[in-house]
Amino acid sequence: MAVAGPEIERLIALLAKLPGLGPRSARRAALYLVKRREAVLEPLARALAEVGERVSVCSSCGNVDTSDPCTVCLDATRDASTLIVVEDVADLWALERAAVMRARYHVLGGTISALDGFGPEDIGIGRLVARVAEGEVGEVVLAMNATVEGQTTAHYITERLEPTGVRVSRLASGVPIGGELDYLDEGTLAAAFTQRRPFG
Amino acid sequence: MAVAGPEIERLIALLAKLPGLGPRSARRAALYLVKRREAVLEPLARALAEVGERVSVCSSCGNVDTSDPCTVCLDATRDASTLIVVEDVADLWALERAAVMRARYHVLGGTISALDGFGPEDIGIGRLVARVAEGEVGEVVLAMNATVEGQTTAHYITERLEPTGVRVSRLASGVPIGGELDYLDEGTLAAAFTQRRPFG
Repeated sequence: MAVAGPEIERLIALLAKLPGLGPRSARRAALYLVKRREAVLEPLARALAEVGERVSVCSSCGNVDTSDPCTVCLDATRDASTLIVVEDVADLWALERAAVMRARYHVLGGTISALDGFGPEDIGIGRLVARVAEGEVGEVVLAMNATVEGQTTAHYITERLEPTGVRVSRLASGVPIGGELDYLDEGTLAAAFTQRRPFG
Repeated sequence: MAVAGPEIERLIALLAKLPGLGPRSARRAALYLVKRREAVLEPLARALAEVGERVSVCSSCGNVDTSDPCTVCLDATRDASTLIVVEDVADLWALERAAVMRARYHVLGGTISALDGFGPEDIGIGRLVARVAEGEVGEVVLAMNATVEGQTTAHYITERLEPTGVRVSRLASGVPIGGELDYLDEGTLAAAFTQRRPFG
């Protein structure tokens, strides 16, 4: 039963598409917005329109931003000798949130996947190799997901980068901080033992 | 550390204000939007702008909608002889979602609260009494929250409506459907016993 006009129902339907919002919370969010027209609804409409007009994929790293090159690539204080390779823009944002390393990025936009028919050129590995071959990069950190596809892609990239002589590293595997051994899978436990370090 | 331009950061900050989205899920939602510019971001921006231009409070019942009178008041198939009084627009939407009764509404926009200095006229009870005195309404259903403020307001409205001779009812109290006695508070259990009904 429609409780409001078609414009509001359409707004609810669009909000429900956002990750983290279901049909019920989208309704609550819409009501929140219409009750705060000047404070939230109109600024949000303007922010979306502005981002929509200006957003593009960074031609240098593959990030999405309102400028090209993106904010991360434009940041001159970053260490240009380290290049972090990630599968997706979401991974870049997650690493930046954790503030682990002020380096440059390269977003693949996917992984090599025989099942989905995704080959090396579908994720632009040639472009990555060419970027590294320019010589400014001293270390490539492969920050792929610890999945079969992620690790296959990491292995393939390592091989392709060998001729450039660049140092290639990958993320450590092991027990997540706060993790309890009892709840971890065998693969993680095995990796944590194999990669054990001297104490202190 | 800013991972994107100021427009995107502002979009994230605004999304984080929505109920159901925190700073982290707002970031995820923003990324979802910038990656689906034509399919979601731009339609959402347009929907918000349109709603923002047209939204208003219904002069008849107090609902918010893009038309005045609102969609509910304009619906001629509803039973105009029953008037459901609710505290907030969110309650109206919740009752419509449950599709309990195709009646008319009256939104108070709050409750009488000595603590907050909210008196009967702050929530327009005079307007409600005047609406009922017009004579079209045969029954007023007080659908207030089962809180002290809600019930105080319900009692006050009942007194004020007495001279009009209208029938006044209120929602049943008791065990929620699916509820387990072991988890219910004493007040609810007592109400469920006091208001027990013949079986079958």
